[in-house]
Amino acid sequence: MSETRADGRSADELRPVTIERGWSAQAEGSALISFGKTKLLCTASFTNGVPRWMNGSGKGWVTAEYSMLPRSTNSRTDRESVKGKIGGRTHEISRLIGRSLRAVVDMKALGENTIVLDCDVLQADGGTRTAAITGAYVALADALEWGKQHKFIAQRATPLIDSVSAVSVGIIDGTPMLDLAYVEDVRAETDMNVVTTGRGLFVEVQGTAEGAPFDRRELDALLDLALGGSERLTAIQLAALAEVG
Amino acid sequence: MSETRADGRSADELRPVTIERGWSAQAEGSALISFGKTKLLCTASFTNGVPRWMNGSGKGWVTAEYSMLPRSTNSRTDRESVKGKIGGRTHEISRLIGRSLRAVVDMKALGENTIVLDCDVLQADGGTRTAAITGAYVALADALEWGKQHKFIAQRATPLIDSVSAVSVGIIDGTPMLDLAYVEDVRAETDMNVVTTGRGLFVEVQGTAEGAPFDRRELDALLDLALGGSERLTAIQLAALAEVG
Amino acid sequence: MSETRADGRSADELRPVTIERGWSAQAEGSALISFGKTKLLCTASFTNGVPRWMNGSGKGWVTAEYSMLPRSTNSRTDRESVKGKIGGRTHEISRLIGRSLRAVVDMKALGENTIVLDCDVLQADGGTRTAAITGAYVALADALEWGKQHKFIAQRATPLIDSVSAVSVGIIDGTPMLDLAYVEDVRAETDMNVVTTGRGLFVEVQGTAEGAPFDRRELDALLDLALGGSERLTAIQLAALAEVG
Amino acid sequence: MSETRADGRSADELRPVTIERGWSAQAEGSALISFGKTKLLCTASFTNGVPRWMNGSGKGWVTAEYSMLPRSTNSRTDRESVKGKIGGRTHEISRLIGRSLRAVVDMKALGENTIVLDCDVLQADGGTRTAAITGAYVALADALEWGKQHKFIAQRATPLIDSVSAVSVGIIDGTPMLDLAYVEDVRAETDMNVVTTGRGLFVEVQGTAEGAPFDRRELDALLDLALGGSERLTAIQLAALAEVG
Amino acid sequence: MSETRADGRSADELRPVTIERGWSAQAEGSALISFGKTKLLCTASFTNGVPRWMNGSGKGWVTAEYSMLPRSTNSRTDRESVKGKIGGRTHEISRLIGRSLRAVVDMKALGENTIVLDCDVLQADGGTRTAAITGAYVALADALEWGKQHKFIAQRATPLIDSVSAVSVGIIDGTPMLDLAYVEDVRAETDMNVVTTGRGLFVEVQGTAEGAPFDRRELDALLDLALGGSERLTAIQLAALAEVG
Amino acid sequence: MSETRADGRSADELRPVTIERGWSAQAEGSALISFGKTKLLCTASFTNGVPRWMNGSGKGWVTAEYSMLPRSTNSRTDRESVKGKIGGRTHEISRLIGRSLRAVVDMKALGENTIVLDCDVLQADGGTRTAAITGAYVALADALEWGKQHKFIAQRATPLIDSVSAVSVGIIDGTPMLDLAYVEDVRAETDMNVVTTGRGLFVEVQGTAEGAPFDRRELDALLDLALGGSERLTAIQLAALAEVG
Repeated sequence: MSETRADGRSADELRPVTIERGWSAQAEGSALISFGKTKLLCTASFTNGVPRWMNGSGKGWVTAEYSMLPRSTNSRTDRESVKGKIGGRTHEISRLIGRSLRAVVDMKALGENTIVLDCDVLQADGGTRTAAITGAYVALADALEWGKQHKFIAQRATPLIDSVSAVSVGIIDGTPMLDLAYVEDVRAETDMNVVTTGRGLFVEVQGTAEGAPFDRRELDALLDLALGGSERLTAIQLAALAEVG
Repeated sequence: MSETRADGRSADELRPVTIERGWSAQAEGSALISFGKTKLLCTASFTNGVPRWMNGSGKGWVTAEYSMLPRSTNSRTDRESVKGKIGGRTHEISRLIGRSLRAVVDMKALGENTIVLDCDVLQADGGTRTAAITGAYVALADALEWGKQHKFIAQRATPLIDSVSAVSVGIIDGTPMLDLAYVEDVRAETDMNVVTTGRGLFVEVQGTAEGAPFDRRELDALLDLALGGSERLTAIQLAALAEVG
Repeated sequence: MSETRADGRSADELRPVTIERGWSAQAEGSALISFGKTKLLCTASFTNGVPRWMNGSGKGWVTAEYSMLPRSTNSRTDRESVKGKIGGRTHEISRLIGRSLRAVVDMKALGENTIVLDCDVLQADGGTRTAAITGAYVALADALEWGKQHKFIAQRATPLIDSVSAVSVGIIDGTPMLDLAYVEDVRAETDMNVVTTGRGLFVEVQGTAEGAPFDRRELDALLDLALGGSERLTAIQLAALAEVG
Repeated sequence: MSETRADGRSADELRPVTIERGWSAQAEGSALISFGKTKLLCTASFTNGVPRWMNGSGKGWVTAEYSMLPRSTNSRTDRESVKGKIGGRTHEISRLIGRSLRAVVDMKALGENTIVLDCDVLQADGGTRTAAITGAYVALADALEWGKQHKFIAQRATPLIDSVSAVSVGIIDGTPMLDLAYVEDVRAETDMNVVTTGRGLFVEVQGTAEGAPFDRRELDALLDLALGGSERLTAIQLAALAEVG
Repeated sequence: MSETRADGRSADELRPVTIERGWSAQAEGSALISFGKTKLLCTASFTNGVPRWMNGSGKGWVTAEYSMLPRSTNSRTDRESVKGKIGGRTHEISRLIGRSLRAVVDMKALGENTIVLDCDVLQADGGTRTAAITGAYVALADALEWGKQHKFIAQRATPLIDSVSAVSVGIIDGTPMLDLAYVEDVRAETDMNVVTTGRGLFVEVQGTAEGAPFDRRELDALLDLALGGSERLTAIQLAALAEVG
Repeated sequence: MSETRADGRSADELRPVTIERGWSAQAEGSALISFGKTKLLCTASFTNGVPRWMNGSGKGWVTAEYSMLPRSTNSRTDRESVKGKIGGRTHEISRLIGRSLRAVVDMKALGENTIVLDCDVLQADGGTRTAAITGAYVALADALEWGKQHKFIAQRATPLIDSVSAVSVGIIDGTPMLDLAYVEDVRAETDMNVVTTGRGLFVEVQGTAEGAPFDRRELDALLDLALGGSERLTAIQLAALAEVG
């Protein structure tokens, strides 16, 4: 893969990824994550207790909300609070983030505690949902640690089963490429978001033919690329979590 | 695959699928489709003209709305009209249906016409979104035919590029299975919806680990199953459209 | 009355009425009812218990919701769930159905149980509200029977006091006519919906001058016609309920 | 009919009815109307022009909105603006008022002008919808006069075909009674609202069995009572309109 | 200050203020207040008990809602209930009224009781928020008296610490003026609402430069004017409350 | 004033104020502003053209929207988009920011262009509305410059008349203090927000007695403090704008 892209990357290269852990002075866990010019603030809010319908189940709950600041995009988008309703895309992404994070949490080990992950896009340049999942994992890990330190989670419990990250892949002019920036995303014939665990298992695979439908061979090439990218994201997450909090 | 299921099917067997084409006396195209006990009414409404922002583009538009009757489910669900807002799941499925059908329509050939596909679940027993896509295709084909007969579409235009159908697959107790009924769906570790064209290309692949994450080999087995099911669904669609309307 | 109508009926003749009882595999009672081309699915959902404000009253509750599928009408109507609010007409009809059914239920005999009647119009050709009431009665009767079989209602209780049905009447070109189809409804000078019990008593009389106001003699003629129609509807309901469920 | 009531009225007697015409300094027509302790402010707002879909039709439009102040009732009711939606009862009454007033307006003679009738209940003691219709007629008449004076309506046009008023009747302990106060209304077995023109024709008849269903003889007695009451209301309206504005 | 205004007032003169106390037969306290042509109905609804989150606090709660009838204004304004949401201005004024009244209530002395003040504008000609506060105080005082008489408030408790009233001031063509009518309000360069207690202390000062920003000397002149007006409003409130209820 | 505060400041001292100008790569103007731990992202979106009702007026429009991220606060607050409506406080602050910025813009000189200021609170520790105004001014200045460079604003036009900033002041334990942090804000007897121009004139003065009402002398002391603070904020704004963009 020697194809070069607008920003000089090779087809299988991630954009520069940075994670500023503990950005928020208020939240139990937080991360300001960038995938190139895409920037999100991910916070994890820990609450002791669960929604009423889960009372007494001995299990915890993890959920997520995604939103974009009105001027995170190239031209201003109206606020969903002003429109009085949440759009389908926002719903879809919030649900994806929640499912992805729940896949690596042992709800019994979490106990009757709730964690809400808020992923707010400050600047958007493609890949906001994958950056959200990747950053939310770091915020989640810190919030779980906070829960242990404050004795809401048992000392020997291991609520985190694995780590989780996500990356987009797509086919542009016939070439499979990793981590699409916005200008690439709009040109992609096929667009796929892949959520994987640190151990390399799939949590979610969502591939969509935006232009021509794709065949089995193309699907395989995209999955290969994604697994490679996710390995590097896992390393970046580990490095961020290794720093002294 | 010799595993037998609750309803006696083998792992790679579809439920009985029936399509009652032209069920509605009002719509330009319609189909009452059943996948076992799952029943939906799919209608296609043809309108000459497009939304204002597409005026003069020379292209048409296809969109979809999915909804469930309150007592299509085992216990009654509140109406979204009464709640005053549409839930995330409904949004997600409506968008999926729309994208899937657009994948087989040549918008230039459709010309400045709009088709709205309404997929209303009368009875739900798993696989409502895949039945919706499969039935909506039949309604769409008839509505396009109607558009030609009424001269809204040019006589030699070929707006339908391919056919489209969808089926669910999942892993239950380690076994990959085709076309999950509701009782199977809730038990599945991994659940995947696969939308394919009549020619066997992928339009959409959405796999989710509801329980344990899945590996590459499992993913491959699920895709194989889905392609087999979609071949049979394509044949059923063709047979329905071959009947005299 | 020898006046002939577009569909060949005489002025005091109902359209063909059919009731497919037990259409739904999910609901405790259900009926797919047609008045000519008007088709509705009526389901009755039985729940043990009542809304909080009725707890301990020893009485039950019966309520109804009416809705139209977007393409039940000749041209597509936007969904109320998408508009985010329920229109005045829908509210009005839902309330009418609820009041009509409650008129034949002894709430003490029902005990602290709730029945929700959902009347969804699959195809509309005039008289949807009267078909809704007539079909909902059949679904209600079956749901009450279900409640007895499952011991939520006392064995010797008689929650159904009477049967109930409804029919529309109107004055067209000076002639009073029974059971208006859509093309007649829009031309009617006066339009009246009459809800009566199997014993021939009035539950609701709603007459509206759409064109010129009407006099006492016309009002009397309309009531006569309605009572005749309701007698035949009662017989059809009884026949449907006499079949083995 | 010698039955005496809580407030000393005989069964066929109206409560004291007063109309303070021109109460508002802002509206083109207005009336503060009381039926006993029930008080409403009715305003008529005249606008030159019609909704877009009626442009060029040569016809006008008359519509109405009904609302209750939160503390017009005995215990405070939440505002519909705060709840974010309009209830079924409000919708139903607004539509009834609009239909009733339109019945006496010649839309061609009105020309392309719109009149909105706002009926706001300041104090409620039963019969608010009938008082609304009766008062709105006076406001409407003045707004039409205003329209003539300001040349929006042709000088020789006669937009008002007739007058219109409304009154409630009901059966209490077996006795038909006119113009029910709130304490009577809640006890009534049957409750009927009758809208009639000054010439004694029916515009709307809405009878509901709140308790036991009613028979034809009772229905006739209620209609007789209503016609008597409406004759007196017509006289009161005429007297109010005869005063110098 | 010898400047004369459109209505002949001097710059430091209030419009005629009248308070019709006890206007409502339903509410525990009420006042129909006019500031010239501005007219509001203020009601105070007394309920024993407080919102759940205050249970057991031993303290009461006072809150307010402000609204305008659609035709209280010169041209008709759409109802907020119809629009489905409350506008920013309404929210702002409701909150201001609530804060202003709470400033003179000792919540401990009120005990666990709630008072809701509804201020509905029947006719608007500037200064509706200041008239609302001034009238709501009279309604509040009567509702507190009612609470004592009905033993919901302890006999020797003194829930009212002080009285409260409000008045607008503004700068027009360089001259500071008291109690602006609508035509003055739209021309004012600076507009200020001042809420004061009977003892002459400030509860709220809200000054806004609609045109050119204002300097310290102008601010001082406006505050002087407001204090003078509020003294006269206090006297009018006292006189109203001195009448036999 | 030698009183020392929790964070060691003297009563008339601002928290450390920093302005990171041009933080956003998307917006025409932007500033990340901190007042101590309070942090907001302010963006200015420039659009050529004005709302339809201003077409042809030759004037521009400036408006603002304020919002808080759900976890900007110490415990998580539900999103207004999820609640489906905007609260009163949000409305009030958005309106205040809009009015404040409009006070320093010459709408004729701006021409038919629209600027939307979005002020999103990333972290809240008191004074978010004053930081919003102070930061929005910097974003606005850059967006106006952008408008000139892109020829939407005439080269010799001077749309900015003055600069604008805001600061909070309050009385705590009898001592007037500048720029309240959250812990101070909740304890303040009186709380005032003062918006001033760079030339020291008042744009908005909003003082509220949260506890005991305040007298004229206290009001004067607060205004003195605010004018002092605003002088320093003006210097910080100028310094930020002097840097090379």
